[in-house]
Amino acid sequence: MDTTPRITFFHALQSRSAGTRALLEELGADYELQLLDLKAGEQRRSQYLAINPMGKVPAIRHDGALVTEQPAVFIYLADLYPAAKLAPLLGDPLRGPYLRWLVFYGSCFEPAVTDKSMQREPAAPSTCGYGDYDTMLQTLVGQLEQGPYLLGDSFSAADVLWGTALNWTTLFKLVPELPVIRAYIDRVLARPAMQRAAAKDAELLAARAG
Amino acid sequence: MDTTPRITFFHALQSRSAGTRALLEELGADYELQLLDLKAGEQRRSQYLAINPMGKVPAIRHDGALVTEQPAVFIYLADLYPAAKLAPLLGDPLRGPYLRWLVFYGSCFEPAVTDKSMQREPAAPSTCGYGDYDTMLQTLVGQLEQGPYLLGDSFSAADVLWGTALNWTTLFKLVPELPVIRAYIDRVLARPAMQRAAAKDAELLAARAG
Ligand SMILES: N[C@@H](CCC(=O)N[C@@H](CS)C(=O)NCC(=O)O)C(=O)O
Ligand SMILES: N[C@@H](CCC(=O)N[C@@H](CS)C(=O)NCC(=O)O)C(=O)O
Repeated sequence: MDTTPRITFFHALQSRSAGTRALLEELGADYELQLLDLKAGEQRRSQYLAINPMGKVPAIRHDGALVTEQPAVFIYLADLYPAAKLAPLLGDPLRGPYLRWLVFYGSCFEPAVTDKSMQREPAAPSTCGYGDYDTMLQTLVGQLEQGPYLLGDSFSAADVLWGTALNWTTLFKLVPELPVIRAYIDRVLARPAMQRAAAKDAELLAARAG
Repeated sequence: MDTTPRITFFHALQSRSAGTRALLEELGADYELQLLDLKAGEQRRSQYLAINPMGKVPAIRHDGALVTEQPAVFIYLADLYPAAKLAPLLGDPLRGPYLRWLVFYGSCFEPAVTDKSMQREPAAPSTCGYGDYDTMLQTLVGQLEQGPYLLGDSFSAADVLWGTALNWTTLFKLVPELPVIRAYIDRVLARPAMQRAAAKDAELLAARAG
């Protein structure tokens, strides 16, 4: 009997929270969906701001605690379901690199991609914690080239985040579709749980449109 | 007998890696210092780029693994020394909020502060993963007001990071010195280990200048 308390997942269709949906499916987690309509501005109503004052999805509530920020949500959830083996355990030599690449997503990739999408002049690399777009991309590609996954042969929650993120950022031309990136996305998205997550969201989207 | 393999800490004086130095002192960790001279550009020489292709400190090497990005380094190190009780354990209801506020530093605070320092127009909040500076600051202040620490009564590694970061960002006028922020910084910096870390760095700086 699974005694893990249920996870409440604050989600929006066609948004960054798709990665968390995919992770929950990969983990076989028992979760309850709270769907927000971003176009209707539900993320900025006081009810949701009490969950996340940033007005952003994803967020999760579990065992009375709120977690926001994708790398934090991913670290938390993957540790909660050790049987799924999507997080190297404490003491595993891959634990540090696992945390590194998850955090790199939020600390370096996201802000550098925002600069790109706004066509901003990069800050002087030495003054900017996320460096510049080109160095960020080279750093990422250097890691992917060692593949097949971010941690080498072990697929992990970090790949769920990065596969999803690289899929939408290449689609929006914010990241170049280099062969190593394309192959990585395809490898991650081919997983049954990733497909299941996408199908569930597509179904909800069709129901809303119909 | 402590059988934990030694930590190598890649550090630079008067830089963001001061927070990691403070954490290592708080943890009572056994570490070996590798000091980089940022003004001499040592962080962009090939030897260091093999450690961190972003050319940034801090980085740590432990048990053959490299870890970069402050929130990742903090999560990793605080879990490595559970006796210091600076990280809520897996299963503790504070574990999720702990990860949330550590990751929030790199994913939201840092890029919003960069925008501030560059006097950039904020991106439309809905397109930008770190929202905008004002919302970021309100979110942080809202949490600090519940104090005395980020997790309430429990001091954690997250406070080592935030106390250090708020200290330099208020000094540089990138963050307003609100009473709640000032009191928080003072509370964190008053800890013996924080003072010890600062004194060790001041000594190295004096030796270099002299
Ligand atoms: N730093 C956050 C960013 C999340 C984010 O940007 N979410 C978008 C969804 S694509 C959002 O909720 N946007 C709604 C809005 O700001 O209006 C994280 O990594 O979790
Ligand atoms: N995203 C990194 C940022 C670290 C960072 O910005 N480090 C600065 C020190 S203040 C650095 O190494 N700058 C040297 C340079 O880029 O030339 C982290 O959080 O660890």
